[in-house]
Amino acid sequence: MPDAGNETFYSRYLDTLNDRRLGELGAFVHDRLTYNGKPMTLGDYQGLIAGDIAAIPDLRFDVGLLVVNEHQIACRLNFRCTPEREFLGLKPNGRTVSFSEHVFYTLRAGRISEVWSLIDRTAIEAQLAE
Amino acid sequence: MPDAGNETFYSRYLDTLNDRRLGELGAFVHDRLTYNGKPMTLGDYQGLIAGDIAAIPDLRFDVGLLVVNEHQIACRLNFRCTPEREFLGLKPNGRTVSFSEHVFYTLRAGRISEVWSLIDRTAIEAQLAE
Repeated sequence: MPDAGNETFYSRYLDTLNDRRLGELGAFVHDRLTYNGKPMTLGDYQGLIAGDIAAIPDLRFDVGLLVVNEHQIACRLNFRCTPEREFLGLKPNGRTVSFSEHVFYTLRAGRISEVWSLIDRTAIEAQLAE
Repeated sequence: MPDAGNETFYSRYLDTLNDRRLGELGAFVHDRLTYNGKPMTLGDYQGLIAGDIAAIPDLRFDVGLLVVNEHQIACRLNFRCTPEREFLGLKPNGRTVSFSEHVFYTLRAGRISEVWSLIDRTAIEAQLAE
């Protein structure tokens, strides 16, 4: 089943990240979830995103491709941003980089319970090495 | 709109890859497509997959997560295989590796016209370095 509701849900989730309202993430994410197979709490997840934002203050989540059904969301996110601290083990050099993330979410009772994310680290590495 | 038809389409596409019937890929892929933004022909695409299979003879495409709608397919593919030649710039060491690919396909008139793929190269690199 498709669910236009999940497109709206995901758009609101990304607004929450882009507006830096991380305290409101509990409306979208369960108290316990798995991230790339690793169990974590909502607090851990907030901390993970807060860390990304600390490393990349202008981080903005933009939807490139979005495919949803009743219980799943798949998104290609496009980023264009300027890392200021180490990110994914890569040291910043002041340059603006463009890269993508392909992420799958599984929803349970209307909130995210599982995240599988792949980030194009190779693209970032190549741009920071230029 | 969701489309159970595209689940079947994708399952048949993967069977074609897993059975090494690359000559039949034209039933699933347009003569001209883009792969990670790069224009290519069906022949180029067949060559790309043939090259992966040459490097990894036991390469098998297994669906981990699948989300489809009428014109899009998003899949997390799981691999467990033994590279025998260089793959993604990484030299084999005889070890079997497990990794995932997150791939989005856009369909036009019932065939693939656009592919956006991210492979977890970092996971492969770590396993080949062990």
